[in-house]
Amino acid sequence: MDHVGRVRRLRTELPGNRLDFLLVTHLPNVRYLTGFTGSSAALLVGKGGGATLFTDGRYITQAKEEVTNARIVIGTKSPVMVAAESLTARSTRSGSQRMSLGIEPESLSAGLRDRLASALRGRARVRSAPPLVERARMVKDVDEIRLIRRAIELGASLFPVACANIRPGASEVEVAAAMEYEARSKGAEGMSFSTILAAGPRSAVVHGRASRARIPRRGFVVCDFGVILHGYCSDRTRTVHVGRPSKEARAFYAAVLEAQRTAIASVRAGVTVAEVDEAARSVLRKAKLAKYFTHSTGHGLGLEIHEAPRLAAGQAQKLEAGMVVTIEPGAYVPGKWGVRIEDVVVVTAAACEVLTPADKELVVI
Amino acid sequence: MDHVGRVRRLRTELPGNRLDFLLVTHLPNVRYLTGFTGSSAALLVGKGGGATLFTDGRYITQAKEEVTNARIVIGTKSPVMVAAESLTARSTRSGSQRMSLGIEPESLSAGLRDRLASALRGRARVRSAPPLVERARMVKDVDEIRLIRRAIELGASLFPVACANIRPGASEVEVAAAMEYEARSKGAEGMSFSTILAAGPRSAVVHGRASRARIPRRGFVVCDFGVILHGYCSDRTRTVHVGRPSKEARAFYAAVLEAQRTAIASVRAGVTVAEVDEAARSVLRKAKLAKYFTHSTGHGLGLEIHEAPRLAAGQAQKLEAGMVVTIEPGAYVPGKWGVRIEDVVVVTAAACEVLTPADKELVVI
Repeated sequence: MDHVGRVRRLRTELPGNRLDFLLVTHLPNVRYLTGFTGSSAALLVGKGGGATLFTDGRYITQAKEEVTNARIVIGTKSPVMVAAESLTARSTRSGSQRMSLGIEPESLSAGLRDRLASALRGRARVRSAPPLVERARMVKDVDEIRLIRRAIELGASLFPVACANIRPGASEVEVAAAMEYEARSKGAEGMSFSTILAAGPRSAVVHGRASRARIPRRGFVVCDFGVILHGYCSDRTRTVHVGRPSKEARAFYAAVLEAQRTAIASVRAGVTVAEVDEAARSVLRKAKLAKYFTHSTGHGLGLEIHEAPRLAAGQAQKLEAGMVVTIEPGAYVPGKWGVRIEDVVVVTAAACEVLTPADKELVVI
Repeated sequence: MDHVGRVRRLRTELPGNRLDFLLVTHLPNVRYLTGFTGSSAALLVGKGGGATLFTDGRYITQAKEEVTNARIVIGTKSPVMVAAESLTARSTRSGSQRMSLGIEPESLSAGLRDRLASALRGRARVRSAPPLVERARMVKDVDEIRLIRRAIELGASLFPVACANIRPGASEVEVAAAMEYEARSKGAEGMSFSTILAAGPRSAVVHGRASRARIPRRGFVVCDFGVILHGYCSDRTRTVHVGRPSKEARAFYAAVLEAQRTAIASVRAGVTVAEVDEAARSVLRKAKLAKYFTHSTGHGLGLEIHEAPRLAAGQAQKLEAGMVVTIEPGAYVPGKWGVRIEDVVVVTAAACEVLTPADKELVVI
């Protein structure tokens, strides 16, 4: 991983944002910039010099093994407060004027910011920085895409397990347990989110986590699942049908599938995320199903399961080559049924490459 | 669950803390006060009137089903910002003077507090409240203890699965996968933390999450695991030995076990958490192992796996009847081996009741 280049590029952004330092506290951002995977960390990046990673005694060995592009400081209190002490000492030594310290306001609690500001009083001004690291993370580099591919391959192998376990009378959670066992046995660090397994009328529940509900003799089953492998997330949704699908069910599925294919076909560098969302939505509008498509079309993924950009109406963000996003339109008729079909794609200059296995004709069980 | 009583008691604490309202944003606190289990919520509790739960459109049905002691408001933006609008409207209507709004500073991001304060400007002063709900949650009521017992029963059933799967050559993660499959199949909502399965020299890693490392022919295996059932967590550690343990290994295990039993014997209402910690530590000191006991003796658990109080040196908190805490001393010799033994106890006036199955003689596999 190009940790050195990532920190270097971040550093060049600080002066333009009127920051002398950025204190990175969002752990996926710390991992992105240094490779550190511990659960307690803050990374201080200065516009002039090197980066410093603050963590605690549990991670002495691990930090040394994982981090080569930052000085490591082990403290006995919160890494943010240890960073504050380090900054204070630095400003006393240099006698420099008041510094500007950027924080990541969405990942630092209000209480911790208060304690940080109080510890720095007079020596540095604490300012909310824009999401500089999140913006950089939107475009994946070649190493990241390789790891995302591997996570997706492992994730894909869970779908046959789902199909083998879905049968009338089985509980949703039994199917999810079999999938999660497969994932863990193959070395996944965990699931990237709570497995969604929503059968029959529950398929209309967008976030229908696997429950103790039993799979009925006939109906859709939405399977939305992902794994974490080497820190990177996979995400994929397939909807299968138990029992013979009615003509109406087939048509409903076909409309969502057409929306999904149309959205994928619209993806290329330079297109806005809103245009991709509209590509899916317009197909469902023609099928008079637009009102049942109650969420956005997709999201970025990588070290986190939900990252920028969000593929939604009204968003001006343009797709860039190297972005990795989901394309997942769905339609949900409350109390009746729901269908969602989701793939992960990597954006290229002229189109996109679908990373998830492409087969998505309706599977009947 | 006595949600009505919990909100009523919280309300009586507001005037003494100079608060007109408390905005509860820590989701386990929202669940504790209302029963709401959705992932997006803020609860506004006023010193004078009823409570209001703010959530979004995904949770219309669920909020109505789960919450009976608060008015429900469905918004299209962040629940905190919808609460701000509601408060602003209220203050305009009543023409009252500047209100004091307490926030939970550790669970509200700095960015969101800025947006909240900005939305309320002039109408309410935003103040960091003390951890009022966390303090109330320390002492469990009878319904909570019943649910914790059920979680612990389910959790206990995973240990035989661990023993059946631990064998030289198996990977740690295979054992963890079998345990997690059992948990899910029996209806656990999930694991309460990433399963720790640390074999051979890895047993000296305090937070040794199950890895792809293979179990050696001889050595300790630390198994630390818990489930979530009906929202409540279980937690338990047992250390087994693969192959015939040396005399030194047996003595090492016996010392930790004596420390654990001594700590349990010290638990009763009125004792400080530091005294319980010292009870464990003094046994290990006599065995010349104190320097290898690198963490605190235990923690509260309930809706979260780590709650107040923390059973550590220097803490003045006294135990009260109804607190549910772990007792988990350990000793870890880097590169060699480690042992930890953990039970969950509920504090009573005269002693404590151990909720986890009590058998803890060294299991040899």
